[in-house]
Amino acid sequence: MRRPSKSERDELRRLQIVTAAQACVLRHGFHAASMGQIASQAQMSVGQIYRYFANKEAIVHAIVEHIVSRRLVWIGSTGGHEDLPSMLARRALSDEDAGDQALMLEVTAEASRNPAVAAMVRTADERLHAHAVAVVRRDHPHLQAADVSARVELIAVLIDGAAVRRLTAQQADTAALATLYREVIERLLPGDAAAPGKR
Amino acid sequence: MRRPSKSERDELRRLQIVTAAQACVLRHGFHAASMGQIASQAQMSVGQIYRYFANKEAIVHAIVEHIVSRRLVWIGSTGGHEDLPSMLARRALSDEDAGDQALMLEVTAEASRNPAVAAMVRTADERLHAHAVAVVRRDHPHLQAADVSARVELIAVLIDGAAVRRLTAQQADTAALATLYREVIERLLPGDAAAPGKR
Repeated sequence: MRRPSKSERDELRRLQIVTAAQACVLRHGFHAASMGQIASQAQMSVGQIYRYFANKEAIVHAIVEHIVSRRLVWIGSTGGHEDLPSMLARRALSDEDAGDQALMLEVTAEASRNPAVAAMVRTADERLHAHAVAVVRRDHPHLQAADVSARVELIAVLIDGAAVRRLTAQQADTAALATLYREVIERLLPGDAAAPGKR
Repeated sequence: MRRPSKSERDELRRLQIVTAAQACVLRHGFHAASMGQIASQAQMSVGQIYRYFANKEAIVHAIVEHIVSRRLVWIGSTGGHEDLPSMLARRALSDEDAGDQALMLEVTAEASRNPAVAAMVRTADERLHAHAVAVVRRDHPHLQAADVSARVELIAVLIDGAAVRRLTAQQADTAALATLYREVIERLLPGDAAAPGKR
């Protein structure tokens, strides 16, 4: 097996740091997750971390980039949201997404105070929104652009709302809730939610 | 004018502390808001704060209680949500609620790490859910209890989802979005959202 190249090793190191930072933010919160803590979690020195990331904002930016990449893939994969109504009723798109949701909640709370973080959140949402609009327009070419944008926004509200409510007990009957979600999503994306597993 | 009684003065002090704590949490985040900072914001000594609240959790509990009280009033006031669809499209129920939403976002992020805070969030949601279910059942007596519970949960998802998305730029057309919200809410609470300002 050939020795990994310098750029491959750098990429691996960056990934290690980002993964360690995610664990620190989830465990201790955005503020309490310090560069020292991230270094210790990544089993590296603080100096090594600074060789890859100029500051904590740069690490947070990389965390958000990873989440956006996964969500862009999810939006584009028609098979991936076969049963969005039941996913919403269960309040999670996937186990991986549950962690991403918790991280985005931390980042969003911080965004209300930190303009650099607010800009990251805004840019991330713009990319996701534009991609989702393109996918929906491709699948529903008869819809007007403004109408598609509103439909995409409402689905984002449902996904983010279900995510932020994960920590409360689900008091509604999951089956009754999934039925309501199915009707709402059928209204927003006709044909996508009518028959679970259809696509 | 008579001198305020001891219990009135105590109540005023508690309110001062809670208001100061809200400002600290919004400005510095949940973790960075310390008892010392809250005391300084309230222009009291840390010792005085401890006469009214045993620890930071007790202050957070009082913050959540105030938010729940305001939301219980809002749920009960039929005139208060005359135009829920436009409020959702604008992503805020009121200016006061925007502050409450930001606080609840901080508290919810902390709840994922702190079991005491998680219990507060859960209890608050149970009270709000039960009250909303009672109001909807009173206004829509033909609906089944399980169905009402699911409808209330979906409206909570819309409100929390719109709130958490306040920091992103609203990319959808507000009028188109309000129309979609109106249709969805008309499905969930027939008669409540069909004609804005009707009730």
